[in-house]
Amino acid sequence: MSVLVVGSVALDSVETPFGKADDTLGGSGTFFAASASDFTSVRLVGVVGSDYPFDRLQALTKRGIDISGVERADGESFRWRGRYRHDLNSAETLETRLGVFSHFRPKIPAQFRQTPYVFLANIDPRLQLDVLQQVEKPKLVACDTMNFWIESRRSDLLQLLKHVDILLLNDAEARQLTEKSNLVKAARWIMERGPRHVVIKKGEHGAFMFTPDAIFFAPAYPLEDVFDPTGAGDSFAGGFIGYLSQKGTIDEAHLRRAVVYGSTMGSFAVEKFSIDRLLEIERRDIAKRLDAFGRLVAFESDPPENA
Amino acid sequence: MSVLVVGSVALDSVETPFGKADDTLGGSGTFFAASASDFTSVRLVGVVGSDYPFDRLQALTKRGIDISGVERADGESFRWRGRYRHDLNSAETLETRLGVFSHFRPKIPAQFRQTPYVFLANIDPRLQLDVLQQVEKPKLVACDTMNFWIESRRSDLLQLLKHVDILLLNDAEARQLTEKSNLVKAARWIMERGPRHVVIKKGEHGAFMFTPDAIFFAPAYPLEDVFDPTGAGDSFAGGFIGYLSQKGTIDEAHLRRAVVYGSTMGSFAVEKFSIDRLLEIERRDIAKRLDAFGRLVAFESDPPENA
Repeated sequence: MSVLVVGSVALDSVETPFGKADDTLGGSGTFFAASASDFTSVRLVGVVGSDYPFDRLQALTKRGIDISGVERADGESFRWRGRYRHDLNSAETLETRLGVFSHFRPKIPAQFRQTPYVFLANIDPRLQLDVLQQVEKPKLVACDTMNFWIESRRSDLLQLLKHVDILLLNDAEARQLTEKSNLVKAARWIMERGPRHVVIKKGEHGAFMFTPDAIFFAPAYPLEDVFDPTGAGDSFAGGFIGYLSQKGTIDEAHLRRAVVYGSTMGSFAVEKFSIDRLLEIERRDIAKRLDAFGRLVAFESDPPENA
Repeated sequence: MSVLVVGSVALDSVETPFGKADDTLGGSGTFFAASASDFTSVRLVGVVGSDYPFDRLQALTKRGIDISGVERADGESFRWRGRYRHDLNSAETLETRLGVFSHFRPKIPAQFRQTPYVFLANIDPRLQLDVLQQVEKPKLVACDTMNFWIESRRSDLLQLLKHVDILLLNDAEARQLTEKSNLVKAARWIMERGPRHVVIKKGEHGAFMFTPDAIFFAPAYPLEDVFDPTGAGDSFAGGFIGYLSQKGTIDEAHLRRAVVYGSTMGSFAVEKFSIDRLLEIERRDIAKRLDAFGRLVAFESDPPENA
């Protein structure tokens, strides 16, 4: 089954302690699509400006990503420029130029409207709601958001949550949205407002998934060399939704594996600039890291005689 | 097999968003002993002042903890006063009065010197080294430390590490000690200097254990109500070493379970002030939470047909 993602398609300029890259492929839609394309066929909706090096999106089409929903508008492309200091934990935004993205009104092409899995990447909740008006009975709707929308579009976001199956957000956003510092309470607050499942991403500290009956946790993979953290969260979402879409089943066992696939893809994303690493890995690399995740958390209970 | 712990025996006054408690039993030795006593017999060495409510240590002896190594010295007891704000993540120290602890010279009673498991809680590395001169061929030596000693007693600490099997410390301390922000690299740096195993505690974000061949991770238990985080790290150490001592085997499988028992005991410690919760739990509470930890991280790989 395929996945529709609506999000930003940007040009990122990033500086880390290990190097510098200008105008690389970036944006939540791009990272999500590159990551999910390892699992399923992906349909990307977004907008770029007239200055966008459109031929470079061929890297996506080669992976089977349908970019016919990426609109080209007159004006500048969305550009983000950021820097990571030595600890790599938080990006310092040096410049954000929304360009054509500030007038983005997603138009879902007719041939995409029946896509069973829909991911609303981090854009204005009003536009996320608008996308839901355009799609037809998706099997699963998941969305992300950010501090800016929680602050400025709170009521729209709460409206959106009523129509969302899974909310993915980071711990700071969960606390800001719910005004609860305890993440278990924050998750419950969110689940009372629509989503059946909540995934709270904690960056290098892993991710919690809350389902009606259980809590699941997956660590972030302890990499020795984190090169560029940009896009890790969207790559997580791509692995998570991509895997669910590949399997077509949304039960507890698949959701748990989906979180681990999400962590796996996030761990690959940070190994190189932009989507470079996501584009070069193969199925066997993913399978290998999934196994490593299993070994990372595996422990057995004491044999019965010691109980 | 029994455990010898050398550490502080203090009086804590703590304020959290949920309440306030004055002059409660505290200190690294106390928390460790209370936690480890759920697994094994514990011998506590420390010092208290003439003002210490010594009869309250009966709570420890009732648990089988041998306090004959707790010296009573003339002067004031070690007192710590702290406050936690709403997020409970970091203590604000309002007052530290070392009292008799500032002249503490641990004397290991003759009947304790052959204890097979030794835990050097967070005290001056020179004293930790001195304890190792007094004990006879322990099977396992583990230790903790803190930012103050890393800063002021670096060379003693490095000397100590040569004689230690397991170092337990938190992530900030690991980074400070090794000057490496990446924890995998930090752990390797430490393991090159003596300890065969390193446990890096990340508070609410769980704990990593590094062994020569593998990395293991256990999350902190996602509690809905964290009441008072004081002593969580020492309670972790108590569960970790207490379990190893109970089993008498130090292999990968036991070490992994030991980390989970450590997390389990840390999660109980924070449910009430002081060691109150540690003293009331029973074996079945521990077993139940250990099972919950198993469910928290459990996922299965895809069935082979999907591989």
